[in-house]
Amino acid sequence: MRSTFQKRSKKTGLSPGSLIHVGNKYAEKSKITLIRYDETFFAEKEISLPADFRSESEKDKRGITWLNIDGLQDIKLFEDVGQLFGLHPLVLEDIISTDQRPKTEDYGDYIYIVLKNFHGQENESLLSDQVSIILGKGFILSFQERESGLFESIKDKIRKNKGRIRKEGADYLAHAIIDNIVDNYFVVLENLEEKIDYLEDDLVKKTTPSTLEAIHILKRELILLRKSLWPLREAVSALERSDSPLINKSTGIYFKDIYDHIIAIIDTVETFRDMLSGMLDIYLSTISNRLNEVMKVLTIIATIFMPLTFLAGVYGMNFKYMPELEYRWGYFGVLGIMLVIALLMLRYFKKKKWL
Amino acid sequence: MRSTFQKRSKKTGLSPGSLIHVGNKYAEKSKITLIRYDETFFAEKEISLPADFRSESEKDKRGITWLNIDGLQDIKLFEDVGQLFGLHPLVLEDIISTDQRPKTEDYGDYIYIVLKNFHGQENESLLSDQVSIILGKGFILSFQERESGLFESIKDKIRKNKGRIRKEGADYLAHAIIDNIVDNYFVVLENLEEKIDYLEDDLVKKTTPSTLEAIHILKRELILLRKSLWPLREAVSALERSDSPLINKSTGIYFKDIYDHIIAIIDTVETFRDMLSGMLDIYLSTISNRLNEVMKVLTIIATIFMPLTFLAGVYGMNFKYMPELEYRWGYFGVLGIMLVIALLMLRYFKKKKWL
Amino acid sequence: MRSTFQKRSKKTGLSPGSLIHVGNKYAEKSKITLIRYDETFFAEKEISLPADFRSESEKDKRGITWLNIDGLQDIKLFEDVGQLFGLHPLVLEDIISTDQRPKTEDYGDYIYIVLKNFHGQENESLLSDQVSIILGKGFILSFQERESGLFESIKDKIRKNKGRIRKEGADYLAHAIIDNIVDNYFVVLENLEEKIDYLEDDLVKKTTPSTLEAIHILKRELILLRKSLWPLREAVSALERSDSPLINKSTGIYFKDIYDHIIAIIDTVETFRDMLSGMLDIYLSTISNRLNEVMKVLTIIATIFMPLTFLAGVYGMNFKYMPELEYRWGYFGVLGIMLVIALLMLRYFKKKKWL
Amino acid sequence: MRSTFQKRSKKTGLSPGSLIHVGNKYAEKSKITLIRYDETFFAEKEISLPADFRSESEKDKRGITWLNIDGLQDIKLFEDVGQLFGLHPLVLEDIISTDQRPKTEDYGDYIYIVLKNFHGQENESLLSDQVSIILGKGFILSFQERESGLFESIKDKIRKNKGRIRKEGADYLAHAIIDNIVDNYFVVLENLEEKIDYLEDDLVKKTTPSTLEAIHILKRELILLRKSLWPLREAVSALERSDSPLINKSTGIYFKDIYDHIIAIIDTVETFRDMLSGMLDIYLSTISNRLNEVMKVLTIIATIFMPLTFLAGVYGMNFKYMPELEYRWGYFGVLGIMLVIALLMLRYFKKKKWL
Amino acid sequence: MRSTFQKRSKKTGLSPGSLIHVGNKYAEKSKITLIRYDETFFAEKEISLPADFRSESEKDKRGITWLNIDGLQDIKLFEDVGQLFGLHPLVLEDIISTDQRPKTEDYGDYIYIVLKNFHGQENESLLSDQVSIILGKGFILSFQERESGLFESIKDKIRKNKGRIRKEGADYLAHAIIDNIVDNYFVVLENLEEKIDYLEDDLVKKTTPSTLEAIHILKRELILLRKSLWPLREAVSALERSDSPLINKSTGIYFKDIYDHIIAIIDTVETFRDMLSGMLDIYLSTISNRLNEVMKVLTIIATIFMPLTFLAGVYGMNFKYMPELEYRWGYFGVLGIMLVIALLMLRYFKKKKWL
Repeated sequence: MRSTFQKRSKKTGLSPGSLIHVGNKYAEKSKITLIRYDETFFAEKEISLPADFRSESEKDKRGITWLNIDGLQDIKLFEDVGQLFGLHPLVLEDIISTDQRPKTEDYGDYIYIVLKNFHGQENESLLSDQVSIILGKGFILSFQERESGLFESIKDKIRKNKGRIRKEGADYLAHAIIDNIVDNYFVVLENLEEKIDYLEDDLVKKTTPSTLEAIHILKRELILLRKSLWPLREAVSALERSDSPLINKSTGIYFKDIYDHIIAIIDTVETFRDMLSGMLDIYLSTISNRLNEVMKVLTIIATIFMPLTFLAGVYGMNFKYMPELEYRWGYFGVLGIMLVIALLMLRYFKKKKWL
Repeated sequence: MRSTFQKRSKKTGLSPGSLIHVGNKYAEKSKITLIRYDETFFAEKEISLPADFRSESEKDKRGITWLNIDGLQDIKLFEDVGQLFGLHPLVLEDIISTDQRPKTEDYGDYIYIVLKNFHGQENESLLSDQVSIILGKGFILSFQERESGLFESIKDKIRKNKGRIRKEGADYLAHAIIDNIVDNYFVVLENLEEKIDYLEDDLVKKTTPSTLEAIHILKRELILLRKSLWPLREAVSALERSDSPLINKSTGIYFKDIYDHIIAIIDTVETFRDMLSGMLDIYLSTISNRLNEVMKVLTIIATIFMPLTFLAGVYGMNFKYMPELEYRWGYFGVLGIMLVIALLMLRYFKKKKWL
Repeated sequence: MRSTFQKRSKKTGLSPGSLIHVGNKYAEKSKITLIRYDETFFAEKEISLPADFRSESEKDKRGITWLNIDGLQDIKLFEDVGQLFGLHPLVLEDIISTDQRPKTEDYGDYIYIVLKNFHGQENESLLSDQVSIILGKGFILSFQERESGLFESIKDKIRKNKGRIRKEGADYLAHAIIDNIVDNYFVVLENLEEKIDYLEDDLVKKTTPSTLEAIHILKRELILLRKSLWPLREAVSALERSDSPLINKSTGIYFKDIYDHIIAIIDTVETFRDMLSGMLDIYLSTISNRLNEVMKVLTIIATIFMPLTFLAGVYGMNFKYMPELEYRWGYFGVLGIMLVIALLMLRYFKKKKWL
Repeated sequence: MRSTFQKRSKKTGLSPGSLIHVGNKYAEKSKITLIRYDETFFAEKEISLPADFRSESEKDKRGITWLNIDGLQDIKLFEDVGQLFGLHPLVLEDIISTDQRPKTEDYGDYIYIVLKNFHGQENESLLSDQVSIILGKGFILSFQERESGLFESIKDKIRKNKGRIRKEGADYLAHAIIDNIVDNYFVVLENLEEKIDYLEDDLVKKTTPSTLEAIHILKRELILLRKSLWPLREAVSALERSDSPLINKSTGIYFKDIYDHIIAIIDTVETFRDMLSGMLDIYLSTISNRLNEVMKVLTIIATIFMPLTFLAGVYGMNFKYMPELEYRWGYFGVLGIMLVIALLMLRYFKKKKWL
Repeated sequence: MRSTFQKRSKKTGLSPGSLIHVGNKYAEKSKITLIRYDETFFAEKEISLPADFRSESEKDKRGITWLNIDGLQDIKLFEDVGQLFGLHPLVLEDIISTDQRPKTEDYGDYIYIVLKNFHGQENESLLSDQVSIILGKGFILSFQERESGLFESIKDKIRKNKGRIRKEGADYLAHAIIDNIVDNYFVVLENLEEKIDYLEDDLVKKTTPSTLEAIHILKRELILLRKSLWPLREAVSALERSDSPLINKSTGIYFKDIYDHIIAIIDTVETFRDMLSGMLDIYLSTISNRLNEVMKVLTIIATIFMPLTFLAGVYGMNFKYMPELEYRWGYFGVLGIMLVIALLMLRYFKKKKWL
């Protein structure tokens, strides 16, 4: 459960806007990448200080600037970034506190967007990183907890001038980042689907307490996903309906497209939840059915052998005068009667469909 | 479950608007049918290239044009269609990605409608195909995953000039297509109803684990239907309330009629869900009842024979001095006592209503 | 279940507005009754053709005309009625398709209202008939599936000039019809309440699988009622808030009154549902309790007699050297020990409150 | 259940506004009390006819008039009251039909408020009386099913000129009545809380079927309360937000205060419901746990004595050649082996934590 | 349960605005602290009478005044405070009745805010104190049930001029108090999380009825938290959206920040609830599984030894003519057969996966 809930208590009593990193610390140093492009040129550079950003951007004022920072533990760096871009202290605080709900906040000069990027490897449990995006006039700032391949395909499209990305503005770049993250949810869903399918096949064959365990782990992962998806839907919807001058009208329809994807993801998550509930029902009734099976075996055995044992007991009594004992065929007669009783019992159970 | 969730992951990382067919590929080649009609004339033609459409439609500018394409796998074809009719890349992408939720999108020059056409044969599981409709000024484009009899009855009405369809505009044709698809839901519901009825009769007679299986399969099919119905309701409601010049005011009432049908379908689906929940309750309590039955048999047998066996055991002891053993009628006396005990037990169980 | 869901599939593929009777056919011929009245006069007549309506109404233009048709199977008749009163084809289609949800539709010249009239005889299952009302300027058309006593009390009030009905307009007559139908729901609820009370008494005394059956039948009847009540509430609310010139402002408060009744009915239905859920809980825990009882009997018997039988078995062994067997009081000693063991067991069970 | 649902069926077929008393008849004759007061004077009088009201009020036109009627069975009286104060027939009908949901209706000249007054004595089930209030210009009419101490404290405050009541208008008096009734809900909740606490203590100590019964009775009482509280909330909210000239702006804040109390009551009722659900869960799992206990006892006994009895049986066989039987220490050896088996079994059960 | 519900019944029948302390009485005397500050000066003083406040504040009119009162039992004090600051009687009543739901009320001259401060020590149950805040023009009044460390960190920030608090107005101080209280919820959540984690580990290892007890206690604490959180969300949202001149536009964003925290807390509470539900499911199915285990042991023992005991019984019969008894190897033969039967049974159980 450690990942569902971050230790915020270390912030109690601090002023709002106090910069304290809440979350995991993956690397020692943040990595800062600066990309600048327009339709005609492209430049990519790794810089070590945000101040470098200023010098870089002053050299050449054309095009769109994308500053990406991997690693959120360097408070000093974020103070610099905040000052450089005029970010509100609360935004800075949110960027480095990795327990935010997805949301969109319009601060006039820039729009602050925060999302969760899920990655669930096939045999691992579901993890999420926080990705923050600042969409300003002609620039994008993006922040993630640790370096990942997340932005690689976007960078590639910019580098190779694939699609429309070099022709469009910073809002389209923001859209590309969000779209990338949302597309990744489909991968997560497919992994979950495989696990559910596997579990379902399992359920038919054998039911062990570990099945219940697995159902509940999947349920919890769906709860985690859901917790992120509903506010994400709101956040993207806010971008779609935004009347900020930072978002071009023609980009709105692309956010609508992401919105539709999120709705489809939510639908699938709800369907998975229904399926897991159904599997829980099957699991519980399988236990009951199995108890029935066990009890039937016991009852059949007891019902056949108790009367027979009683009969044997009767003729094991030591009364002096027991005429049957003297009979020539007494023993075989009793064995015969026992066989008849046993057969009658079996027939009774067959009629009751217990056999 | 394969049909509930399409493999979208192959699209991860692509630009939005990238044309990749997501879904099943039913035929090698798409089939393109062109129908042109107004009150006075009717022409139907199979064409091989969308470009033919242009030449056809330029010859004769009258009336309404209906271009239907069966089969969504031919990317090149859809790029041509998109260019020809000026469709937004995202619309094209949605048409060939067959995992869309039903929706209506007004793009000004045209309205994009996407629906699910369900077909559940009597002994098969529920399947759905995606149907996309573009309603433009004087033309309708329709796209489905594979050729089906779906549009045959509409074509027939146009051919034979039945009803009002030849007198009305392209919006009425769009309505006719949607109406046809929604009417088909009633057929699906009737098949489901038959299965539920059959299962219900079954439940009274015998309860096997396969009953539970069947209940859960039906439940899942209802979830599938529901997942499609709620957005469909929104989509048709949007058409009804639309103030687009593409939709005639007088056609609005026909969309209202479809809307009412969808509400009725949703009501029925909810009723079916309630019925299946009730059946699950009955199934589970039947298992419990059966356990009670089994346990009663065991308890009756044990309660009757244990004391008797004990009694027989007592007189099977080998003590030297056991006066009863010497009695002339000892044996028969004990048999008599045993009978009395058995009868008392039976009476006790009768009083407890266990017999 | 046949009554919950009508066979609509025979309409698939037909144009909307096609007149096909969906529902039960109760009588061979529709019965048409024409009532005309105002404060000063009253005329009631059975006519055979709608055309007669015209001649009748032209003779005398005063007052309010109420045309009631019992029996919906005569398509020709409804085509005539539609033409005579200028009804939209979709309205005609709805009138004779008896699977409509309750609704109100304002067509400008007239308001179309459709409701369900429930009748649940004491020992029968719940049935519903569809009642359609057309409220026009100065006239009311009403349609029901078969002749019933439903309108008798209203006719009587008109005949005998009781209450305000002769003083008010056609909207008040429409209100009187709806009020009558809604009042009938109270009768249905009282029948249901009796059944629930009876079942509840039953539940305390004995629990048989038929109790479960009965609970589920009642549950389903409540689902049926609910399915009709929620849209009915909307329909009446629409009438109350209507700004149609066909409805007098002063009549609005009477529709509000009906609305309050419907809310009260819905409340009661919800309460009944909660009660049935509670009864299901009691039923299920009663089964569990009973199993506990059965198992206690078995365990008590087994726990007392198993050790005793073992003891008897020990002294039934045939070892040559078993000193106890030779004792004078061995037999009686063992019997005594057995008694002590049995008493100790009984005391243990008494302490455990099993006895 | 008799109190949850009144016999309305006797009203079926009557015109709306027909005065028929629906509810219990507590006393033969209604008691009419007339109170008149302003800041400077106070008069209280019991009158026998509403007409007396007129003569009384004409004598002295100052101040606020409060006419209270206890007992709703006298139709004639209510017809007189209706005429005297110009009440709408539907209001009169609602006053004497004691199955109303709480509501507020603004009739322009007066506001009609109807509420439920609950009284649940400590050892009795929950009962409710209907209280109706007519707030007019300078007067209040109040109606209750039977005389109760409900209004005594208000009268006392007026008599002794305590608080602001003599300084404020009729709207403040209406507020005082409603406030009194709502405060009474807290008493009802405290009684319920005591019952729940008692039941909870009980649940830990012993679980009998009567516990389940008690849980369900409490659940039903909460359903009853809830059914009244939600519409009451609406009714008081309507008074708070009312722009009627009959309600002074400064009184609005007092209605807001009542509204807050109702919300707190609803919160508590919901909490109680959650607690009862939790108790039901505990009850059901206690039954299961107990079954486990019973079965463990049975299994322990059977597992220990069955092998031993078998062993004794083996040496009770009458084979001619059984060497052990001849051994000097055979008997004691077998007894020893039996002891070892029993001890091993006990150790096994101890390891399994069954003992 | 005592803390969930306060004894309000002692207020029944009193006028609204009557000052009666409802809640716990922690100390004999209220403690009044007066803090005055602006950017340049800071003064802190403990005073004994509110009247002292007047003299203090008249001396020096600069800056912001914060009057904090710990302890709510001194009615006289609150009457003085009410008069001094012109508070509405209902506000005074709410301040000292410690069963308020969190809310914000704008009285024009001042805003009244009431919240719950939770404190759950690690091994204790959850408790809450009521904190009331009056935000006026240039002053803050705060009231809590007893002295706590709650405000210490805020006072410290003011004293040491840390952060922006000395530069901002009274609205920012109100924000700081609320922020402090909301941050404290995170501490409560972390304690709850630890308990849930501990319980979860416990559940896997052993399941005792006390586990169920613990789950239910946690569930109830979550219900308590939730009951406070939803209205708190509304209260803070009202502050954020407030257009009162008392709240600076730039402070709005800080309330939005608190609002986001509350949403995150609610999300976590909901996640905890889902987790506890899942744990209850596991608990219940563990009981069922354990019953299955017990029954399997019983059935295996019975199924093996019943046939063997029967066989021994057969050869314990005393028939005169039983040829097997005479056989030389009869005894060993029977022992061999018994062994074979036992082995077959064991193999059968192994195949059934019961062993």
